[in-house]
Amino acid sequence: MNIEVLNTGSELMLGQVQNSHLGYFSQLLLPLGLRIQRQHTLPDGPIIRDVLAESLSRSHVILLTGGLGPTSDDLTRFLVSDLCHCPLEYHPEIEAKIMDYFARRRITPPSSVKVQAQIPRSAQILDNHHGTAPGFHLLHQNCHLFCLPGPPSELYPMFEEQVIPLLQQLSPRTAAIHCRSFRIHGLGESEVQQRVEEPLLALGQVEIGYCARYREVDLRLISTDSALLDRMAQLVQSEFQEFIYAQGQDNMEQVVIHLARQQGRQLSTAESCTGGLLAHRLTNVPGASAVFHRGWVSYSNTSKTEELGVPTVTLDTHGAVSAATAEEMARGALLRSGADLAVSLTGIAGPEGGSPEKPVGTLFLALAEKTVDGTISCLTEEKRLVPRREVFKTMASQAALDLFRRALLKHNQRDSALTT
Amino acid sequence: MNIEVLNTGSELMLGQVQNSHLGYFSQLLLPLGLRIQRQHTLPDGPIIRDVLAESLSRSHVILLTGGLGPTSDDLTRFLVSDLCHCPLEYHPEIEAKIMDYFARRRITPPSSVKVQAQIPRSAQILDNHHGTAPGFHLLHQNCHLFCLPGPPSELYPMFEEQVIPLLQQLSPRTAAIHCRSFRIHGLGESEVQQRVEEPLLALGQVEIGYCARYREVDLRLISTDSALLDRMAQLVQSEFQEFIYAQGQDNMEQVVIHLARQQGRQLSTAESCTGGLLAHRLTNVPGASAVFHRGWVSYSNTSKTEELGVPTVTLDTHGAVSAATAEEMARGALLRSGADLAVSLTGIAGPEGGSPEKPVGTLFLALAEKTVDGTISCLTEEKRLVPRREVFKTMASQAALDLFRRALLKHNQRDSALTT
Repeated sequence: MNIEVLNTGSELMLGQVQNSHLGYFSQLLLPLGLRIQRQHTLPDGPIIRDVLAESLSRSHVILLTGGLGPTSDDLTRFLVSDLCHCPLEYHPEIEAKIMDYFARRRITPPSSVKVQAQIPRSAQILDNHHGTAPGFHLLHQNCHLFCLPGPPSELYPMFEEQVIPLLQQLSPRTAAIHCRSFRIHGLGESEVQQRVEEPLLALGQVEIGYCARYREVDLRLISTDSALLDRMAQLVQSEFQEFIYAQGQDNMEQVVIHLARQQGRQLSTAESCTGGLLAHRLTNVPGASAVFHRGWVSYSNTSKTEELGVPTVTLDTHGAVSAATAEEMARGALLRSGADLAVSLTGIAGPEGGSPEKPVGTLFLALAEKTVDGTISCLTEEKRLVPRREVFKTMASQAALDLFRRALLKHNQRDSALTT
Repeated sequence: MNIEVLNTGSELMLGQVQNSHLGYFSQLLLPLGLRIQRQHTLPDGPIIRDVLAESLSRSHVILLTGGLGPTSDDLTRFLVSDLCHCPLEYHPEIEAKIMDYFARRRITPPSSVKVQAQIPRSAQILDNHHGTAPGFHLLHQNCHLFCLPGPPSELYPMFEEQVIPLLQQLSPRTAAIHCRSFRIHGLGESEVQQRVEEPLLALGQVEIGYCARYREVDLRLISTDSALLDRMAQLVQSEFQEFIYAQGQDNMEQVVIHLARQQGRQLSTAESCTGGLLAHRLTNVPGASAVFHRGWVSYSNTSKTEELGVPTVTLDTHGAVSAATAEEMARGALLRSGADLAVSLTGIAGPEGGSPEKPVGTLFLALAEKTVDGTISCLTEEKRLVPRREVFKTMASQAALDLFRRALLKHNQRDSALTT
């Protein structure tokens, strides 16, 4: 089944909005055995008609997003109506719903919203429970065309509740495609390939993919043979062990919060150069509040001393960006928060502030941990990261999460060693 | 000039990586008078060849990204060589550079990297100063094909330093396309259109675009007539006034840091439900350290009391999610940090923790500000936001930044009132 995605909207072309639809669709279609062959992004305008005509001639399913709004650049319903020879029909029940939507929010609806009550004849209406523009589904020349709203808050519920069931009916007999992903932190793409690709292919036919990020790589295995993938997963697991932080789509913060909750251990954070990103990532995970109670963003020297108790002599002797300061920050966060584990970061995110000995990209991390006998153990790490501010912050927060993760894993291993 | 973008990589199709290339390219091409007509995303595999053949037949410029790496799913150089009848040629100087890249990082290069030293005959090599895979530029049937690496850290410098100058030579006489964007916070898309579209079109021909986000809209005006856009900008400005937080691409945190630096006023943050996102956004802006010295992530009640001095009686009487607690948090942050302005947030990000009176999505914000006579003024706001955790955090942090922004603007107005 040939599936194409058409995302429309000049704001996507101009880079004012990031397009996240493609990945969203893929992750819901794969379990149904469906893969997207092509995706197009197009500006608002007549080019949508040209590309849609091409796609209609070669696809079984088209997912078209955007252009259903009330403003003058929203052209989808007109172009589809014209191309598919289905005149627009006015639906009073849709207008009533739109008016109700505005009334509940105590907003006077502008007159332009009524255009959203017009749907091409013979199309099936897809209700919008989270906005004003309904979507619609049209069968044209054996191609199922789904026209859907662009904003994710409206698109996602409509897709999951109304489109997915229709697609399931269309492809009831396709074998599910299985995808195993291994998220590996601390190794490069080439090294990962060199260590596992040959042995994997010796086990059987599989589609292997790599996706490299900063000091990370996702290894992806795709096949319809689930048992084969199980054997391959064992091989990958035994080769990379604790370098694998997740199988599947979990991110590092989900893994850390999950481990901490399992162990009932509290986390705290003391951030200088990441400026709150580490705490933000931890608190993105639902249920983080069970294991994360407080954190500090201590950007200035004074705040490191006043909030975390870093001795001024440490700052004067070693500098704010040093292993000694990182260690004092982590200890301070641990003591003040009463947590079981605290991670600190101090570094130079740039663009200013670098020096020959400590260039932009320099990072010191520390982990302070309560030990069984009540003392505090501490370890520090120094890293040289990419000297671009936002990349640096992302990499630094990932390294900090990995410190938490490895400490929690070790605790698990100690526990299981004690019980055996 | 017809320009198309082809992004390749199964990880993009599978949603494991967000594609940010399109927006990046657009923002650099627009000032050259160049617009992208179509963008395609394709999985690794032979479909790249089909789509590339179509694009070559109708485009003047193709920007193709991805598939230049050393692993088995990297096919770009082979497909291009085949399609354009340019056999691959081995370049020892490229291999030497790759070996040097690994040597400087003290990593043993895997043998597979040597494939990256192969470039189609007659192609111009584009050096990669931030990774191993060089790009290349090929003229085929009057179409300029640029093959570029996928990772942004390698792509961006190559594009800016080597591709842009070549494109400038190709289109030396095109009139620049001007784009004016107005970022409007607190008004909806329909309302913005209703208030300005007719008067704008009465001034002259212009391409008008809208991009709606949560409680925000970007209004975009595009024309080659810069003087006309100036008149239109005046109209938009006088209609929406302080609802416009930026013209152009600046985001809210850049605006806030810029205003605070202008005024030499210090900011501080006390975050519960946003968990560090507000501080993270502020510290994304280079130079934030001049006006932001410290912030708190006080998730638990105890931390609100211990770190920010929120009286337990306030928490007991009004609850942690209340205007009273928000006010005490902001006051506490202001006093402890010595800043001039502090914003606090407390709310229910969900999915758990809601109640009938305070459902998920409830947010209280407070702004504490040092006044001229040394006292502290405080204002609080209550909002009901989208009850999805990550959306909620984003909207809440945006509302908090807007509180900072409006307070800083008022200060500017007071200043100018005093001097006149």
